[in-house]
Amino acid sequence: MASVIPASNSSMRSDRNTYVGKRFVHVKNPYLDSMDEDILHHLDLGTKTHNLPAMFGDVKFVCVGGSPNRMKAFALFMHKELGLEEAEEDIKDICAGTDRYCMYKTGPVLTISHGMGIPSISITLHELIKHARCCDVTIIRIGTSGGIGIAPGTVIITDIAVDSFFKPRFEQVILDNIVTRSTELHKELSEELFNCSKEIPTFRTLIGHTMCTYDFYEGQGRLDGALCSFSREKKLHYLKRAYKAGVRNIEMESTVSAAMCGRCGLTPAVVCVTLLDRLHCDQINLPHDVLVEYQQRPQLLISNFIRWRLGLCD
Amino acid sequence: MASVIPASNSSMRSDRNTYVGKRFVHVKNPYLDSMDEDILHHLDLGTKTHNLPAMFGDVKFVCVGGSPNRMKAFALFMHKELGLEEAEEDIKDICAGTDRYCMYKTGPVLTISHGMGIPSISITLHELIKHARCCDVTIIRIGTSGGIGIAPGTVIITDIAVDSFFKPRFEQVILDNIVTRSTELHKELSEELFNCSKEIPTFRTLIGHTMCTYDFYEGQGRLDGALCSFSREKKLHYLKRAYKAGVRNIEMESTVSAAMCGRCGLTPAVVCVTLLDRLHCDQINLPHDVLVEYQQRPQLLISNFIRWRLGLCD
Repeated sequence: MASVIPASNSSMRSDRNTYVGKRFVHVKNPYLDSMDEDILHHLDLGTKTHNLPAMFGDVKFVCVGGSPNRMKAFALFMHKELGLEEAEEDIKDICAGTDRYCMYKTGPVLTISHGMGIPSISITLHELIKHARCCDVTIIRIGTSGGIGIAPGTVIITDIAVDSFFKPRFEQVILDNIVTRSTELHKELSEELFNCSKEIPTFRTLIGHTMCTYDFYEGQGRLDGALCSFSREKKLHYLKRAYKAGVRNIEMESTVSAAMCGRCGLTPAVVCVTLLDRLHCDQINLPHDVLVEYQQRPQLLISNFIRWRLGLCD
Repeated sequence: MASVIPASNSSMRSDRNTYVGKRFVHVKNPYLDSMDEDILHHLDLGTKTHNLPAMFGDVKFVCVGGSPNRMKAFALFMHKELGLEEAEEDIKDICAGTDRYCMYKTGPVLTISHGMGIPSISITLHELIKHARCCDVTIIRIGTSGGIGIAPGTVIITDIAVDSFFKPRFEQVILDNIVTRSTELHKELSEELFNCSKEIPTFRTLIGHTMCTYDFYEGQGRLDGALCSFSREKKLHYLKRAYKAGVRNIEMESTVSAAMCGRCGLTPAVVCVTLLDRLHCDQINLPHDVLVEYQQRPQLLISNFIRWRLGLCD
């Protein structure tokens, strides 16, 4: 693949961010080294069937999001934005052997779909990180979310991911113990992303807390699920308390993403567009073209950020 | 669509099961009736754009499973097994407008993919149940799982779904309260399924507890994730305790499935094949053809069950 990216890391804009500089992705598992072969079941990749370091060694940006179609669209967009020479039709799904996830590589950008919810993205992250022999990797979740007290279409850069109780924690069950992990996102990266957003006048971007739930209906206080045991007043009281605690949007993957990536040496960010204001409604009833345009907003921001980092947009 | 199924419910084999008889699917949400329109966002269906009662009113069996390709294969298999006259190429994905899930209808059988994990299947179930004006609906999760202490390829019919602490409960966060729900599967249905399995001599079927976790790696005691903080001995100790508590397999959707379906008037079952014995290994390294054949086992059992219920295989 022809690439606009020089091989050396010295080309990275380390002058503009102090946290880049040979920070290797690492696993925290003493058992992996002793394995003769490792099959990444859900990605349909393996250490004997694929040369993973050769395939992914130059990755600097990992972009993850729920929907396969949306992430394919982002990969094609990045391909164009980076001015890569490879024909668009040659950008193939690296995980074509499975229907669980899809994955595309365009220059130093790896784009992957992760399905919906903490368990689904957790599998993606484990299998992605296990054999990543990369350094200085920024991982950004590009998602959709419900906003609280802000206009639909606003893009939120997460500073801290919180759980349903507004706590900055992810509770990981390990065997039958509950281990609490921190869910802070990378402050400098968030600020860098926010600075990039100032160059885009067509939509508003904020930094705020993101609430991550295990459920889209009852867990997010929706009145339109198959089950609903609380009143409209209780719902609004809950969402207003969330707002007061700093929460600006709600989604379903940020806490585990922050907890895992931070521990494994990746620099994580979460950037989601809001599709509705939950203080006003529960239903996502945007016209199709508006929905598509909203979904492109975080993609545009991340594309600008990556191009800026690579020195392509001065 | 030509159908082999008479319109009247009296044709159902109610002589062989006492729990069939005008049990309506119902929602427990007083707000739904007042909605002018309900958009089922993740299924790309809606009450104004689709005639949901006409589309789904005759559904008697709902079969759900994680993988879209596997569920499409099951729908085509059921179409053949029911001897439906419609051409195979006319069986279209009802949710073609979204890439979140896929859905097929073949006679009285609705087949849907639900992605991976509790949050993902929970969204499917909410949107599926909300406007289901059906009665006597059996819902069966057809999945893959890790076995404990049993040969790979064994099919497990779940009697009770338990959590990581071997408790028969599903903890649903509602606003910021934790509500505990029962996860018992339907005893008579499980026994009926087990009786059907006796007609299939090519694989072994058991009834047992199924453990449902939020995570495939640390939460299931795997030594091959990106993070692993426990020893092989601790892992084995945990899995042996699970076995002693009656757990025969581990998957990621059964508790919420049991909890939601039971509350909404559907008769739920969970039938999963085991792909490995977790007392021996963590990796799924079956040859492709063996994996495919294992995955077909619960499909074959459910097909036999549905045909038996419909009086098609005496």
